[in-house]
Amino acid sequence: MTKSLDVIAIGNALVDVLSHADDAFLAGHKIPKGSMSLIDAAMAEKLYATMGPAVEISGGSAANSIAGIASLGGKAGFIGKVAKDQLGQIFRHDITSLGVEFTTAPAAQGGKPTGRCLVFVTPDAQRTMQTFLGSAGDVGPDDIDAEQIKRAQITYLEGYLWDTPLAKKAYIKAAEIAHKAKRKTALTLSDKFCVDRHRADFIDLVHGHIDILFANEQEIIALYEARNFDAAVEAVRGKCEIAVLTRSEKGAVIVTKSDTVTVKAQPCAKIVDTTGAGDLFAAGFLFGLTRKLPMAECGRIAAICAAEIISHVGARPEVSLAKLAGLS
Amino acid sequence: MTKSLDVIAIGNALVDVLSHADDAFLAGHKIPKGSMSLIDAAMAEKLYATMGPAVEISGGSAANSIAGIASLGGKAGFIGKVAKDQLGQIFRHDITSLGVEFTTAPAAQGGKPTGRCLVFVTPDAQRTMQTFLGSAGDVGPDDIDAEQIKRAQITYLEGYLWDTPLAKKAYIKAAEIAHKAKRKTALTLSDKFCVDRHRADFIDLVHGHIDILFANEQEIIALYEARNFDAAVEAVRGKCEIAVLTRSEKGAVIVTKSDTVTVKAQPCAKIVDTTGAGDLFAAGFLFGLTRKLPMAECGRIAAICAAEIISHVGARPEVSLAKLAGLS
Repeated sequence: MTKSLDVIAIGNALVDVLSHADDAFLAGHKIPKGSMSLIDAAMAEKLYATMGPAVEISGGSAANSIAGIASLGGKAGFIGKVAKDQLGQIFRHDITSLGVEFTTAPAAQGGKPTGRCLVFVTPDAQRTMQTFLGSAGDVGPDDIDAEQIKRAQITYLEGYLWDTPLAKKAYIKAAEIAHKAKRKTALTLSDKFCVDRHRADFIDLVHGHIDILFANEQEIIALYEARNFDAAVEAVRGKCEIAVLTRSEKGAVIVTKSDTVTVKAQPCAKIVDTTGAGDLFAAGFLFGLTRKLPMAECGRIAAICAAEIISHVGARPEVSLAKLAGLS
Repeated sequence: MTKSLDVIAIGNALVDVLSHADDAFLAGHKIPKGSMSLIDAAMAEKLYATMGPAVEISGGSAANSIAGIASLGGKAGFIGKVAKDQLGQIFRHDITSLGVEFTTAPAAQGGKPTGRCLVFVTPDAQRTMQTFLGSAGDVGPDDIDAEQIKRAQITYLEGYLWDTPLAKKAYIKAAEIAHKAKRKTALTLSDKFCVDRHRADFIDLVHGHIDILFANEQEIIALYEARNFDAAVEAVRGKCEIAVLTRSEKGAVIVTKSDTVTVKAQPCAKIVDTTGAGDLFAAGFLFGLTRKLPMAECGRIAAICAAEIISHVGARPEVSLAKLAGLS
C-alpha cells in the first residue's frame, strides 16, 4: 500500500464491554470512579461474573479516535494487536469497515485472548474502566512498519500503552521514524491515574518526542503537579507545539507558545455515557490539523465529535461525523 | 433447583450484531426489509464483511422476552444452545446476570459456533435480520428437562425455531409436558415470512397445543390468509384461550372467546430501533398473566415494555422495567 494517511495511531486493540452500574457497585469492588485500571484474566472473569448485562462495542482509546477520523472523512491507520478469536474478529471488522488501514498481524493462536475493557457507566454518565489487556498488550517494535509511519501526516500515541514496556519501545520507535520523516507526533495522556504511574516518563516523552499533546484538566495538573489549571497551562506552554487541554462542559483550551485559544463545549441534549469523549475530541482536532484549519476551527470540529459520542452508549460514532460537522 | 418459575422459554440463543444500514444496502443484497431469513456460515461471513461497524448485544426473540420478564421482577428460565466460545460466554453472562435460570448444556467443542443475527437498522427504525443459527439450531428434545417445564406457570415458544426439525420436536415435547402438568403454553408467530414457511404446521400447533398466542397484524393475517385484520381476529377467536395481536403504533388487541380488549400503544419520544418490540410486548403481557392481572393491565405493562425497547438500539431493556411500569 502506498496511499498517504492523515493519521496513524498505535493503541490498545480492545473490545468494550459496557454496562450500567451504580456507585455502590464501584465502592463494593473498591474501584475509584472515573479511573482506568489494568486487571488480569482472573480478575476480569471474576468482575464480569458480578457485572450486569452488557453490550460489546469495539473500543480502545486511540482506536476510537481513529474511527472518528475515518467518520470525518480522513484517511487513517491503526496499529494494535488482537488475537485470532471472535472478539478479535469483531474489532477487526469494525475498524476496517470504516476504511481504516489495519494490517498488524494478530497474536499467535493459543496465546492471550483479545483484550477487553469492562466499562461501568454510572447514572451520572461517568465511565469507570477495568481493562484486561490480553493480546493488546503485546504490540511491540516489530509491529511498527516504518513505511506506514512515514506515509502518515501525524502519528498518534495513546498514553495507556505506557503500562506495557514493549509498547513503550514501539512508541518511541514510531515517534523517531515520524520525526526523521518530518512528520508530526501526537499523544494523549489518557488518564490521571496513568499519568501518576508514569509522570517522569511522560514528561520526557512530551518534552522530547511530542508535537501535539492532548490532556484533560486533571491529567495536565497531575503531569506538572501544578496547583491549578492556569498553572498547568503555563507549565506546558512551549514544551510541545500544541497542547489541547479539555475541560468537559467548560470546553477546551488550546495552548501554543504564543497563543491561547478557547473552545466552547457543544451543547448535548442528554449526556448518556462519557466513554470516548476525549478520544473523539482528539479525533476532531487532529482531523482539522491535517486539513490545515485554524486552531479555533479544529477545536469546533473536536467539540462536535465529543458531543456526539457522549449522547449515546459506546465510544464509536453512530452517525457520520463529516455530516454532523458540516464537512460533507 | 426446585424453585418455581413464572415463565420458561425455548428459543434461539443468538447474539445480535446490530448496525445501521440504508434501504439501498438491503436492496443491493436482495434482502426484503423487515424480514428475518436464515443464512449459512459462508453467507454470514460474506454479509458481515460488507456490513458497517456494529454493536454486539445478546438477542434471540424468546431470550429477549425472558430478559424482559426478569427485568419486570419475574422468575424466568431459558432453554437454548450456545457454543463454548466468546459469543456463547457473552450470551450466557447476559442472561444469567439477570437472574435467569439457564442450564442448557452448551454444544460440544469444535462444532458450530454460537449463532448470531445480523440486524440492519434502517433510518425508519425498522430492523431486517439475517440469522446464522450456528449452535442455536441444535436445541432438541434432550434439552427439555421435564421437571423444569413443570416448575413454570407458562412455557413460551418462539416460532422461529420451527425452522429446525429437532427444535420442533423439543417444542412439542415441552408443550405436552406443560399441559399434562396443568400449565399454560404460549407461542409467538415471530415473523410473517416464518408463518408463510410453516402455515399448516403453525395452525395445527396453535389449535392443538397453545393457550396464549402472540402475533402482529401481518402474521395473524398470514396465518389465516385472511382478507384483513378484522377477519383474522374472528378467525383466531376461540382457537386458543388468548390471542394477543399487536399493531405497532395502533396498539394491540387481546382476543378471547368472548371478549375483545383494546390496548393503546405507549408514547415513545423517539423510535430508534424496533428490534425486540414484539418480544418485549410478549414479556410484559406474560408477566401480567403470571400475576393474575386483568387483560387490560397485562396489555398496559406490555406496551410500556415495548416502548422502552424501541427507544434505543438493541432488544434487551436498558432500565428496570419493573420501575418503569410502576411495579416496584
